[in-house]
Amino acid sequence: MSSILLLNGPNLNLLGTREPEIYGATTLLQLESQCRDWGRVLGLMVDCQQSNHEGELVDAIQQAGTKYHGVIINAGALTHTSVALLDAVRAVGLPVIETHLTNVQSRESFRRRSYIAQAALGVISGFGADSYRLALEAMARHLSDRRGADGS
Amino acid sequence: MSSILLLNGPNLNLLGTREPEIYGATTLLQLESQCRDWGRVLGLMVDCQQSNHEGELVDAIQQAGTKYHGVIINAGALTHTSVALLDAVRAVGLPVIETHLTNVQSRESFRRRSYIAQAALGVISGFGADSYRLALEAMARHLSDRRGADGS
Amino acid sequence: MSSILLLNGPNLNLLGTREPEIYGATTLLQLESQCRDWGRVLGLMVDCQQSNHEGELVDAIQQAGTKYHGVIINAGALTHTSVALLDAVRAVGLPVIETHLTNVQSRESFRRRSYIAQAALGVISGFGADSYRLALEAMARHLSDRRGADGS
Amino acid sequence: MSSILLLNGPNLNLLGTREPEIYGATTLLQLESQCRDWGRVLGLMVDCQQSNHEGELVDAIQQAGTKYHGVIINAGALTHTSVALLDAVRAVGLPVIETHLTNVQSRESFRRRSYIAQAALGVISGFGADSYRLALEAMARHLSDRRGADGS
Amino acid sequence: MSSILLLNGPNLNLLGTREPEIYGATTLLQLESQCRDWGRVLGLMVDCQQSNHEGELVDAIQQAGTKYHGVIINAGALTHTSVALLDAVRAVGLPVIETHLTNVQSRESFRRRSYIAQAALGVISGFGADSYRLALEAMARHLSDRRGADGS
Amino acid sequence: MSSILLLNGPNLNLLGTREPEIYGATTLLQLESQCRDWGRVLGLMVDCQQSNHEGELVDAIQQAGTKYHGVIINAGALTHTSVALLDAVRAVGLPVIETHLTNVQSRESFRRRSYIAQAALGVISGFGADSYRLALEAMARHLSDRRGADGS
Amino acid sequence: MSSILLLNGPNLNLLGTREPEIYGATTLLQLESQCRDWGRVLGLMVDCQQSNHEGELVDAIQQAGTKYHGVIINAGALTHTSVALLDAVRAVGLPVIETHLTNVQSRESFRRRSYIAQAALGVISGFGADSYRLALEAMARHLSDRRGADGS
Amino acid sequence: MSSILLLNGPNLNLLGTREPEIYGATTLLQLESQCRDWGRVLGLMVDCQQSNHEGELVDAIQQAGTKYHGVIINAGALTHTSVALLDAVRAVGLPVIETHLTNVQSRESFRRRSYIAQAALGVISGFGADSYRLALEAMARHLSDRRGADGS
Amino acid sequence: MSSILLLNGPNLNLLGTREPEIYGATTLLQLESQCRDWGRVLGLMVDCQQSNHEGELVDAIQQAGTKYHGVIINAGALTHTSVALLDAVRAVGLPVIETHLTNVQSRESFRRRSYIAQAALGVISGFGADSYRLALEAMARHLSDRRGADGS
Amino acid sequence: MSSILLLNGPNLNLLGTREPEIYGATTLLQLESQCRDWGRVLGLMVDCQQSNHEGELVDAIQQAGTKYHGVIINAGALTHTSVALLDAVRAVGLPVIETHLTNVQSRESFRRRSYIAQAALGVISGFGADSYRLALEAMARHLSDRRGADGS
Amino acid sequence: MSSILLLNGPNLNLLGTREPEIYGATTLLQLESQCRDWGRVLGLMVDCQQSNHEGELVDAIQQAGTKYHGVIINAGALTHTSVALLDAVRAVGLPVIETHLTNVQSRESFRRRSYIAQAALGVISGFGADSYRLALEAMARHLSDRRGADGS
Amino acid sequence: MSSILLLNGPNLNLLGTREPEIYGATTLLQLESQCRDWGRVLGLMVDCQQSNHEGELVDAIQQAGTKYHGVIINAGALTHTSVALLDAVRAVGLPVIETHLTNVQSRESFRRRSYIAQAALGVISGFGADSYRLALEAMARHLSDRRGADGS
Repeated sequence: MSSILLLNGPNLNLLGTREPEIYGATTLLQLESQCRDWGRVLGLMVDCQQSNHEGELVDAIQQAGTKYHGVIINAGALTHTSVALLDAVRAVGLPVIETHLTNVQSRESFRRRSYIAQAALGVISGFGADSYRLALEAMARHLSDRRGADGS
Repeated sequence: MSSILLLNGPNLNLLGTREPEIYGATTLLQLESQCRDWGRVLGLMVDCQQSNHEGELVDAIQQAGTKYHGVIINAGALTHTSVALLDAVRAVGLPVIETHLTNVQSRESFRRRSYIAQAALGVISGFGADSYRLALEAMARHLSDRRGADGS
Repeated sequence: MSSILLLNGPNLNLLGTREPEIYGATTLLQLESQCRDWGRVLGLMVDCQQSNHEGELVDAIQQAGTKYHGVIINAGALTHTSVALLDAVRAVGLPVIETHLTNVQSRESFRRRSYIAQAALGVISGFGADSYRLALEAMARHLSDRRGADGS
Repeated sequence: MSSILLLNGPNLNLLGTREPEIYGATTLLQLESQCRDWGRVLGLMVDCQQSNHEGELVDAIQQAGTKYHGVIINAGALTHTSVALLDAVRAVGLPVIETHLTNVQSRESFRRRSYIAQAALGVISGFGADSYRLALEAMARHLSDRRGADGS
Repeated sequence: MSSILLLNGPNLNLLGTREPEIYGATTLLQLESQCRDWGRVLGLMVDCQQSNHEGELVDAIQQAGTKYHGVIINAGALTHTSVALLDAVRAVGLPVIETHLTNVQSRESFRRRSYIAQAALGVISGFGADSYRLALEAMARHLSDRRGADGS
Repeated sequence: MSSILLLNGPNLNLLGTREPEIYGATTLLQLESQCRDWGRVLGLMVDCQQSNHEGELVDAIQQAGTKYHGVIINAGALTHTSVALLDAVRAVGLPVIETHLTNVQSRESFRRRSYIAQAALGVISGFGADSYRLALEAMARHLSDRRGADGS
Repeated sequence: MSSILLLNGPNLNLLGTREPEIYGATTLLQLESQCRDWGRVLGLMVDCQQSNHEGELVDAIQQAGTKYHGVIINAGALTHTSVALLDAVRAVGLPVIETHLTNVQSRESFRRRSYIAQAALGVISGFGADSYRLALEAMARHLSDRRGADGS
Repeated sequence: MSSILLLNGPNLNLLGTREPEIYGATTLLQLESQCRDWGRVLGLMVDCQQSNHEGELVDAIQQAGTKYHGVIINAGALTHTSVALLDAVRAVGLPVIETHLTNVQSRESFRRRSYIAQAALGVISGFGADSYRLALEAMARHLSDRRGADGS
Repeated sequence: MSSILLLNGPNLNLLGTREPEIYGATTLLQLESQCRDWGRVLGLMVDCQQSNHEGELVDAIQQAGTKYHGVIINAGALTHTSVALLDAVRAVGLPVIETHLTNVQSRESFRRRSYIAQAALGVISGFGADSYRLALEAMARHLSDRRGADGS
Repeated sequence: MSSILLLNGPNLNLLGTREPEIYGATTLLQLESQCRDWGRVLGLMVDCQQSNHEGELVDAIQQAGTKYHGVIINAGALTHTSVALLDAVRAVGLPVIETHLTNVQSRESFRRRSYIAQAALGVISGFGADSYRLALEAMARHLSDRRGADGS
Repeated sequence: MSSILLLNGPNLNLLGTREPEIYGATTLLQLESQCRDWGRVLGLMVDCQQSNHEGELVDAIQQAGTKYHGVIINAGALTHTSVALLDAVRAVGLPVIETHLTNVQSRESFRRRSYIAQAALGVISGFGADSYRLALEAMARHLSDRRGADGS
Repeated sequence: MSSILLLNGPNLNLLGTREPEIYGATTLLQLESQCRDWGRVLGLMVDCQQSNHEGELVDAIQQAGTKYHGVIINAGALTHTSVALLDAVRAVGLPVIETHLTNVQSRESFRRRSYIAQAALGVISGFGADSYRLALEAMARHLSDRRGADGS
């Protein structure tokens, strides 16, 4: 069974209370719980972490290198401003999937640039909580493909 | 059962032969067949169309308005240059999901802008053929959520 | 009596059904019929063509060179992206009037650039179906002025 | 009968003498007289004002709010530089049509931006004096449509 | 007692009537009267002037140099386009405070640049009529501080 | 009595020692004490927090949502780089006033953009410590106006 | 003997009639005939195709992959706007030479960017019909060099 | 004897009092008097006008067309923002020389663009009052050359 | 003996494990130990700190003001995004040297801008671990020069 | 027989030794000798010059005006930075062909701009040494066409 | 008597032969001779130098530091590209006047930037040979003013 | 013992006399002598060359390829404008270190781009003459490391 780190960035702890007409009514706790359930079905052990601090997210990605098989990250606002997260993703050897609740391409122009995406496996955005589920499915199949390719 | 149009744009007919180290060895026929299979499991009837012509893609999106419940589109190079496709997506009332085999955010800078994304439900890119499967899953759940919300 | 080609570009075939709150409830067939009527009053024989294909619009402009005295064109989304249409307009020796249902200057910034306008006689935008009527009036008077200037 | 303010901006008082090969040989007085005649036929009482002063044009637009049913404006060079005119147009509740003798889109690049257009009903440019006549026709029909819609 | 010039630029004479949902229902006369009252309490004699003409605002700033101890200016649309006002502010030796009813930073991008701000003491924006009161308070304390520093 | 959070960002803890010719000789402790005094007079209970960490500022804004009636923030350098602070301000339902000791518009060009301002009630900059006093006055009046409007 | 596809894009069918002072008096038929003659001398079988449709040009490039040893293309206006042609050129394994009748570098700035050139062997522009002859010579020698290098 | 209009724009009326370390201690009256004296020696009748109003400067340039043989203009801040002045200069048939007291190329970047210069005979900047004297000398010789060329 | 703070930013804790083909095989601990040794020879007491948190780096620079004679900083990714670090460097009165393992000028374009460099004594980049040694030598000589200049 | 100057710019003297995988193994001497041979066949006397100095290239182009019938130039890096070479090409009345060994359009973005091309007859790039041969052929035919047109 | 160096840059040696409709029929020798004559009348000994080499112009400016009282320079195309000339002008302590035959502001946009102007006393452009005479007059008066100010 | 070429570009020959408050009082001769001394201690034979000519610097770098083990270059103003120097550095196989007396990152924005840096080993700037000493130390250690790696 593979283990996965699900990382949420700034303000995602407010999920469910923050602008629910945009972000939906599910809280972060509920979302994380759902992700763990979805993961279980897919054969993924999902650990969850959230932080409003760029540094803690960098720490988490670094530590994931030795503890997890992959990272799913919604870096929130830091997606668009943090070169440090890009460097962290490049530094660890793990597959990383970037995910967003909303379709960031259709919002303010400064949300169109993603530093992390430059080192990510892929990007899924716009499907609300389902973006996370899709990311888990993508990760599960990516890891099992790779395992297949390794002959293991 | 919902029916879905899967639309592929310029050069995707070459799949499997075109730069396989980037785009993989699966041919378009195989991919479309897989999509129909994946769709069947998800309760989606999947019709497939490919064209190298912007106008035919516009035609297809327009006609989808009365024949399908949703559109999944990989517009290829036209993603980045076609305002006409954006207008077509806006004109029909259907949910549209944009998908890409590769992670377009990490390629040439002119591939960073997507016109279609401005009217799409969401975007999935970077997972090879699996991008399509994820899009089908996202569409299936989106349509069933909506049906739920409609009380039907 | 002068003959005129009225050319409509991508998605204008959806007129009346597409975002009626923006584009109005008149269908393209109705609009074309109106244009033929308006033309008759102004002494203009109006032929109508619509295409979602850039290439067909280029073809139409080229062929207009030998069959018509002028072209009225609403190139839709291609207004902003097609250098080929500009070249076609330059290539034929006819007066061309660019027209738009909506005031494109007040919409997304990528709709602010018109390639065709660089070779057009003039531009009329923002008056709904009346933009076409104004274009017909402008064309009728332009052609009759020219005839006057030629002493014919 | 509706009353209309026809407003001309900087350097349009030189019409007929200024670069006649570009702007034609009709003087402003003649053009204004023509506009009054054209207006009469269309059921419009046309008052004319010209100023080289941005402030006077702002004053005129403001005062039009209580005295006229619509404004036709050729703001000349101020089209491209005056945010104050845009604000004035937004402040009064009248329909405003922007007009130009020449096709400004095909001249220097700094003439491509129009602030006023962002709040105008529509734009007509490139037909010489006929641009004004078309604007009057557009205004007349717009006002009578609106009257129709109001049931009056 | 210090005397202050309160200067309002283009379209601010429409206050109370112009887009009241944005700018509020207070008229300019009422606002000026309030400012005189607020000033009296703060030990400031407040004279008020409004003009839609850049040149008159330049004149007023210049003349303020010998008649007033400070200037509070809401240059309206000219804030973003007038280098002449910047030069005038630099030319007179007075403290100048820039003020706006609305938060201009959150509106169109062309409202983000202020020429005057480059020579102003400070900027207050977004508080409706209260922006003026805050500016008066800021000016009152600035002048009294300076007087203190001068040992007078 | 309303309670307010006064939030200071990176390097503002150095106030009084850091470049006093630019930022003045008052220390942060003195400024915070003054703000509490000014607040008391205005009927505001003022709590103060300072951090050099973006994440802690995001935390503080989030927590303010349930504990305070408003936030006054000088985000220092983060004003110009932090989308996360903008998102936090948008997420909590509180009125937020942005304040700066110096007139940031007249400094380096990278200090001209404020992300927070896009969601703030208003901005006050350039008056040294008095910027904070003005912000408190603005907040006090804003809260009492709102209370008035609510009929409470 | 090698076989070559000579591909001409939008508006090149008008050659000889379109702005002859710029493009010369030779018609496309004559040019194609000349190219076949020039080719014969160089040991190249030259097939010719022209289309005003981006999609047909993409189709033609794709099909060339299995039928020809090289492609010479003058994509006309599409040179500057079509990413799809770039992708098609990259997708087929053939040497492609870009050619232009005029020196595009010395015309409008939007003609300075060529997408195709990023995947082309080389570019020849500015020599009228002779640009094609030079392209044929370059292609002939390139193919024979390669054959030499392959030891065949 | 030729007659010349010397036109000064916004804030130049403050000459001698405004930032004398930059602009020198000569007042505008003294400068204009000097210019008349310098003109007399050169055979030029020099009339002087100053305005802070763009519209008055446009008026003055227009009227110069029938009363003067040339115009020397220091449009001050309007140099960089006024398209209306450019149009006025183009509209009258007179030689116009642009002049500046300071070397505008070495100041803020927004002072680097001159609209007027695009239609001016030449530009002289950086020599303080001597810029005007040089402009008079240049004008005198330009007019006498032209007279020579006309055989008069 | 002078004391120096050596500050390393985000992801530099991974040195030796992270992309060793780019950053080399030396770990951060080894590098810090080397720096202390190199420092000892140069008469510098070197303290070392690393953090992935912008806020902690700001804290460290601030505290360095009273404890160290100089700072050597490799801010990693924050070099290119953090205005807060620039402000901190400006706030403390210490000489600061910026250093990088790789030659950042030859990497992605977003690594070309350094905020810190605007307040730094100098920059050394591209020499791997030796960049740090050179920075220590530069610092040692800079401090001893200054001491010499102070006559101490 | 026509005489031609073949001019090579900076670093082309290193041909054959410099990055042979990019520029090929032929030395400049060999290339020049080939060009003389190719020229002889075409009826062109080819003189060759190389310089790393912009000034010497300007000198050479100037002197070519009286000694040669045409110039073929590969200005190397100066292609992209030298306005002086453009001016020299414009100043002499000769046909000038720009040539490059590599396809400069597909390299760094700063190699995309060519000043010389704005005054050149045409451009040939991407064919290695064969670019020169093609340029000679183009020149030979251009000169003989012109001779034909002159009736000589 | 003051001595002046008159420096002409690339292609100015072609004066009289190069595009005479733009640059006039006077040769450089004639112009230099005129300048010496004009200088003599003004009390200036004028030495003349021309070079197509940036390096020689830098050399000349450097050496002027000890031999001349001022430099008049028309750097031709290097005006727009050479930072080295700017540095040279800054390095010598002499007054430098930039001059141009044509009005460079009204030509290609890349001629709008002048590096030298950032360190020059002033700029004179657009008056043909008379630009040089005006520069000599400006220099003569500047030097005599300075002598006056020095009390010599 | 390794031999090194120390190359100084435009205006560095003025060292000690040119703006000593920026560049210090050491002359180039003294600096070169120091460098030879520093080099001797480090086991480097240092040859020195200076030129104001881009072409001579290109020549020098080319010739260094066969005579030296490395190049240290301060290209002065050419750092920011010369693509030819970049190409020369790429063409020779030597390690090249870029050095500057001042911290170029903190000066005019046009000094922020370095072409040479894109091919250099590393960059050292801001330490006055010590920048050269640091570059020598870096070079010495780089060469000895390489020698170590080669087993020699």
